[in-house]
Amino acid sequence: MKIGIIGGGAIGLLTAGYLCSGNHQVTVYVKRGIQKQKINENGIKLLPVDKTYWVKALHISEIEQEDLLIVTVKQYHVQDVFQEIAVLPSVPFVFLQNGMGHIDTMKELSQHHSVFAGVLEHGAVRINEHTVEHTGKGLMRLASMQSYHREAVWLADKISLPGFPVTAEEEWFAMLADKLVINAVINPLTALFHVQNGEVIGNRELNRIARKLCQETCQVLNLNAERQWERVSSVCRQTAKNHSSMKKDVESGNRTEIDGISGFLVEQAAEAVIPYTSFVYRSIKALEALSKGDSYA
Amino acid sequence: MKIGIIGGGAIGLLTAGYLCSGNHQVTVYVKRGIQKQKINENGIKLLPVDKTYWVKALHISEIEQEDLLIVTVKQYHVQDVFQEIAVLPSVPFVFLQNGMGHIDTMKELSQHHSVFAGVLEHGAVRINEHTVEHTGKGLMRLASMQSYHREAVWLADKISLPGFPVTAEEEWFAMLADKLVINAVINPLTALFHVQNGEVIGNRELNRIARKLCQETCQVLNLNAERQWERVSSVCRQTAKNHSSMKKDVESGNRTEIDGISGFLVEQAAEAVIPYTSFVYRSIKALEALSKGDSYA
Repeated sequence: MKIGIIGGGAIGLLTAGYLCSGNHQVTVYVKRGIQKQKINENGIKLLPVDKTYWVKALHISEIEQEDLLIVTVKQYHVQDVFQEIAVLPSVPFVFLQNGMGHIDTMKELSQHHSVFAGVLEHGAVRINEHTVEHTGKGLMRLASMQSYHREAVWLADKISLPGFPVTAEEEWFAMLADKLVINAVINPLTALFHVQNGEVIGNRELNRIARKLCQETCQVLNLNAERQWERVSSVCRQTAKNHSSMKKDVESGNRTEIDGISGFLVEQAAEAVIPYTSFVYRSIKALEALSKGDSYA
Repeated sequence: MKIGIIGGGAIGLLTAGYLCSGNHQVTVYVKRGIQKQKINENGIKLLPVDKTYWVKALHISEIEQEDLLIVTVKQYHVQDVFQEIAVLPSVPFVFLQNGMGHIDTMKELSQHHSVFAGVLEHGAVRINEHTVEHTGKGLMRLASMQSYHREAVWLADKISLPGFPVTAEEEWFAMLADKLVINAVINPLTALFHVQNGEVIGNRELNRIARKLCQETCQVLNLNAERQWERVSSVCRQTAKNHSSMKKDVESGNRTEIDGISGFLVEQAAEAVIPYTSFVYRSIKALEALSKGDSYA
């Protein structure tokens, strides 16, 4: 297939590299000229295997006709990308973002395009403009926003690879909700307390706060809290030594994805129903402002 | 007067030094032999004025007959001290602790002794075993636990000094509650977010969290939330560059006073009524455990 990947972050580079290894014809669409140049000169380098994949890089404004477009930009950049892609002739889209803040955008786009919500469970760290390290293997899950499950199965089968498996899910909301629970509990706590994922269940008090966050999230999303807590605990154990993306963002002074995660839940529910989620939402916003030196006193 | 100061921390050394300057005969009661020795050899050195006051130091087990005993140990050590002082012949006591966790101890002691609750609004930092820096001037407020207001007025007048003024208050609970609001808002937030007092109102999101903590505290203590928020804001402005004691304790890996502050409120109220206070209470307990390396996974 002719596949365009929008976004040159860790997820974009990882996905581009693997799909290229599967003999797809891959183009990466980026925002900055320097990244376009570096990828075109050096290809995408995938660590730790140390393989190079020769993909084409173009500016986001130069989008060509593709058989599939995979949007990998951070959730808070989805709206910018939407301006570029909404005008394209009909093409299938896959969205790979954390959180649920981009649901409205996906729904709007699905009026004229096939749209698949995606969840990527891999770990990846961008080393430089054209190099990405694959730090944890997982699944890419896809689900049709239009309930075209057979299309999702066909697409998953088409792009699945031995080192980069893709599966189709029936329910896009349930799939995103499952991921949101994980992110709503682990990400803000690891960022606020500067701890690895394991401490979220390993520290007695963080464990109690985490349970509260899990309960609140399940209340908003109408999920079974006991089952979800087992999932959260399991992920914390399996990734005990990992540093969450939000922790890294806070420590680097970068913008976090809190708006699409806890912020989405705060928008959906009254504060009295989810006070712990409201607290961590404001806390991460406070840390973002502090790192920028914002103050309004 | 013959005055005994129990505790050789910043507050104990500061109070001992000033009272000595007022020609009282002061003895400091300490726990550790090394501090007893250092004070007896060097006196108490008061900075930044750089004056030395020659007081006697004794071990807590060597308590002599005094005209007044001022208890300055941290709130979580009040119970240990109680074992030593409960058996003394009748003597007036002043308690200078943060929080409200020691109310029951004061009440029990007041069955056989005159007991005064105290609030010290000075800033002080202990430099070494016998040196203390006076970093912010304020008042010592006293109120009788037995409603003997004339005794409180008499005592305040007796120990008040130009550089160390002491006043008498009519209502011990109102006095401690006013102080608790300040401590319940400023201390945990500055400790959790590693910020100076000014950011508690200067950062937009911390400001919102602080208002919530203030409202919750006022709800538990039956205080006027608007008036108390003005007090909290005013203290934050006046001490904008200060580092709270709880922030310093967390950063040094020391035990904090959270149990007598937010912990007291959590004991008094249902969690649903004070979720933000519960959150910061658990957060500071988590930070204490993390600094000790505690984990139960």
